[in-house]
Amino acid sequence: MPHVCLNSDEPGIGGLFRFRPETAGPLTDLAEVLLRGPNSLTRGERELIAAYVSSLNQCQFCHSSHAAFAAAQLPGGMTQVREVCDGGGVEQAPVSAKLRALLDIASAVQEGGLKVTSEQVAAARAAGATDTEIHDCVLIAAAFCMFNRYVDGLATVAPDDPDAYAAAAQYIVEHGYRA
Amino acid sequence: MPHVCLNSDEPGIGGLFRFRPETAGPLTDLAEVLLRGPNSLTRGERELIAAYVSSLNQCQFCHSSHAAFAAAQLPGGMTQVREVCDGGGVEQAPVSAKLRALLDIASAVQEGGLKVTSEQVAAARAAGATDTEIHDCVLIAAAFCMFNRYVDGLATVAPDDPDAYAAAAQYIVEHGYRA
Repeated sequence: MPHVCLNSDEPGIGGLFRFRPETAGPLTDLAEVLLRGPNSLTRGERELIAAYVSSLNQCQFCHSSHAAFAAAQLPGGMTQVREVCDGGGVEQAPVSAKLRALLDIASAVQEGGLKVTSEQVAAARAAGATDTEIHDCVLIAAAFCMFNRYVDGLATVAPDDPDAYAAAAQYIVEHGYRA
Repeated sequence: MPHVCLNSDEPGIGGLFRFRPETAGPLTDLAEVLLRGPNSLTRGERELIAAYVSSLNQCQFCHSSHAAFAAAQLPGGMTQVREVCDGGGVEQAPVSAKLRALLDIASAVQEGGLKVTSEQVAAARAAGATDTEIHDCVLIAAAFCMFNRYVDGLATVAPDDPDAYAAAAQYIVEHGYRA
């Protein structure tokens, strides 16, 4: 049961958005620009970073949501997402060398901003990452350290049924986060 | 030296905002509504939560900034801020019982969303906190887990001179985050 009375049964962050529309606006704008705005990283790649960080933070709602959103937009679908998020580390992740290096940076950000090393950034750059891609990776990882804490810090409910997340994925892919 | 080329000497988050205006918009909107929008928590109280979480995350730029912003808007000034952020825990913090309970929730959020307990929320409510105040406290704490990681994950520069933060405080108090 959520820690505050949300006056709705909507699970996860949706109920929080209805409860406090004043903060929902900037939060959905941030998700839209980071995960769906014009970018040399594909939408699937950015959703995968979000899903991966959410799994490191053990946030069931955000992880299940963004895993479904990533799967719907990546060539390898949910199999690829599962291998990245449930595998034993990103070294073996079935993604490009560039995305692997960015996921490594994201995992450092999840631990703390000061954990990101010049070596990790140099490795990403050597694998072809641009400054904007490195910036966006850090900010996506940081933003999910916020979203995950927001959703779980208020003890919102996460559906167990995978179909709920698949349906949400279809909606987000079609309409985006601001709809 | 920042991990990416920002093309400006502006320290902390300011250089990041110039580098990527597309994400600066929602981030400044979020700070404005959370820290300065209409609220039963004063601006000083909300800035104190931000400064406290930033000190727990050891983010020099965000901590120094929001400590200065809190000091400029709290009756006890910087002395009160220092006793909260440098003290041995919030139990002895020289603030109202309600704000003390909210700072306790904020410190749990800093560790992770799943660390917030029903007992902490009940204690805040018993001290007079409303559902909206509890919600906003959790989101402020979560947001600074993002801002701190963003600023340090990209290795931005933090001025050592306290006057730099005092000048920023004067500007923010007068003009807000969107200016």
